[in-house]
Amino acid sequence: MARKTLSLSSFTTESGATLHEPEINYRTWGELNSDRSNAVVICHALTGSPDADEWLSGLFGPGNVFDPDRDFIICANVFGGCYGSTGPASVNPKTGKPYQADFPVLTVRDLVRQQQLLLDHLDVRSVKFVFGGSMGGMQALEFGVMDDRIQQMVLVAMGKAHSAWAIGIGEAQRKAIMADPKWKGGYFDPEDPPADGLAAARMMAMISYRTHHSFQQRFGRNPQEGKDQFQVESYLNYQGNKLVGRFDANTYVRLTQVMDSHDVSRNREDAQAVLHQTTQPSLIVGIDSDILYPVAEQKELAELLPNGIYRELHSKDGHDGFLIEFEQLSNLILDFLNQSDNTDARKSQLVSRP
Amino acid sequence: MARKTLSLSSFTTESGATLHEPEINYRTWGELNSDRSNAVVICHALTGSPDADEWLSGLFGPGNVFDPDRDFIICANVFGGCYGSTGPASVNPKTGKPYQADFPVLTVRDLVRQQQLLLDHLDVRSVKFVFGGSMGGMQALEFGVMDDRIQQMVLVAMGKAHSAWAIGIGEAQRKAIMADPKWKGGYFDPEDPPADGLAAARMMAMISYRTHHSFQQRFGRNPQEGKDQFQVESYLNYQGNKLVGRFDANTYVRLTQVMDSHDVSRNREDAQAVLHQTTQPSLIVGIDSDILYPVAEQKELAELLPNGIYRELHSKDGHDGFLIEFEQLSNLILDFLNQSDNTDARKSQLVSRP
Repeated sequence: MARKTLSLSSFTTESGATLHEPEINYRTWGELNSDRSNAVVICHALTGSPDADEWLSGLFGPGNVFDPDRDFIICANVFGGCYGSTGPASVNPKTGKPYQADFPVLTVRDLVRQQQLLLDHLDVRSVKFVFGGSMGGMQALEFGVMDDRIQQMVLVAMGKAHSAWAIGIGEAQRKAIMADPKWKGGYFDPEDPPADGLAAARMMAMISYRTHHSFQQRFGRNPQEGKDQFQVESYLNYQGNKLVGRFDANTYVRLTQVMDSHDVSRNREDAQAVLHQTTQPSLIVGIDSDILYPVAEQKELAELLPNGIYRELHSKDGHDGFLIEFEQLSNLILDFLNQSDNTDARKSQLVSRP
Repeated sequence: MARKTLSLSSFTTESGATLHEPEINYRTWGELNSDRSNAVVICHALTGSPDADEWLSGLFGPGNVFDPDRDFIICANVFGGCYGSTGPASVNPKTGKPYQADFPVLTVRDLVRQQQLLLDHLDVRSVKFVFGGSMGGMQALEFGVMDDRIQQMVLVAMGKAHSAWAIGIGEAQRKAIMADPKWKGGYFDPEDPPADGLAAARMMAMISYRTHHSFQQRFGRNPQEGKDQFQVESYLNYQGNKLVGRFDANTYVRLTQVMDSHDVSRNREDAQAVLHQTTQPSLIVGIDSDILYPVAEQKELAELLPNGIYRELHSKDGHDGFLIEFEQLSNLILDFLNQSDNTDARKSQLVSRP
């Protein structure tokens, strides 16, 4: 595994803002082969990092979905993030101060263009498949739409566009952050961030990532020992405070806005027409208990993608199931990849866009 | 309709705290009959008021569930509330100041004992049925367990105990309120309350009361005209701010804690044993799209109540369905009440507890 940084001279966002001398912090595993065609791209989710071998540990390894002996695997921190790539907490070279709330509002397509620049830099000619779940899946889908190098897509727990439901859940979380006096319109003291607001937002988010059933099974009405609290309250407060220790509040606001931008039809034709042009074989995975991006969204996506197939992950844990049920997910993806391998090796070229 | 206030000399809570000279603000519709047996009790939900003819408008009227020509209908604001009964915003006669965060933590059973005192005051000898949804249903269930006067129960969209899921959702909302600098530990300036925090909490709550499907159908990804916002964001912000205008933040915290106390087995035998003793005919209504108190909770309750029957309300609107689908709900309840009428009139006495 290698940790690297790519420095660009500038990056212009879809909205027309310019990031000066932005950096892309990324990890790679394995080696690029001689015809530069064994790349695999992993796109991370809202609070994810480029350390994909950590948060996708169960999909990494010999013979597994991400096999460094076979493939050249790439995972970059997105712009707007707080894991090494330029984001709101980074210093703006033009001002010598952190961007904070001045950091531009990005779109999913900005994040894809960022990662396209990285592929260009690495001289990757073909991507065997792009993988992403949740916000990562939104990037992966746009990647397939925007870049002919992508041979296959693996899209997990998202849809063709961010729903009113998911937008609303994000907005309530943003409002909780902004209700914290330390938020200060996003120009907070980095040493004294809006911890309470970010923790409350994360608590809400954690609920949307899980289920009634899993909470009941795990916590029931058990009291937290030594505290005047239920275990579930203690758990959620712990999760909220844990995120505060590793995440920037402006990044949280900006990346939830990135997800709200997600809509394959935005400034294009309608979704059906757009997706009809993406002829890559695609696996779309829904999680049966996901309340945030319910399976209807993935089924619809599989319908709209000409070479899309829908498979369902069974989990009691809701949206987070794809970060938990690794064995099932691994089997689903390996089956898909093996089937694609068995078809005519030239098919992917034949069905590529004109 | 009559608006009245009952003043008590004191009320001791389950936790041992004393409310001095508390007041119960209540409404009644219709007249008590000569043998004082035609009473019907409505228990309100978290942000509800005693004006049940407003929030249950579709269940009121001649021949309907709540018919003032036939029955004597009672709805009281609960202690801890902010619609006229003594709550955190009320002046504590011992200090001459509002209770605010000093207001004791109440339980569902406290609210039932409060309403029992009101029934005593009105000299009600028999309650034809008690009705409640959500927090109201929790009170209605405890009423049936605690008071032999209750002849029938109509319980909507809740369960035998507040689940880990619902506790967690409430806790995230409380944390959003407490992240507001104006909260001040609950001792806020009534003229300058923690509006942003309470609004964020309400936004979260509104999401839990609704569904992915209903939001998508109603708002989709439509932008709000004249604003850099999606319609769903505008809607949720409007709902959040609207509650701020009519609700007290301490009441919000205290009544969500009341719901967390809900567990028919608390300090008693197990739920099965407790509920097995409540022999009143009971209608338990689940809403098929409710994600906050999913139908499994109501089905379980109907199983545990010896004379309980389960009926399902079909709604795209989730938990709030019982405040929307009045025609369906009216039919379900009238069917239940008519069936009970047709059985031996003495049955309710024969099956009363020893």
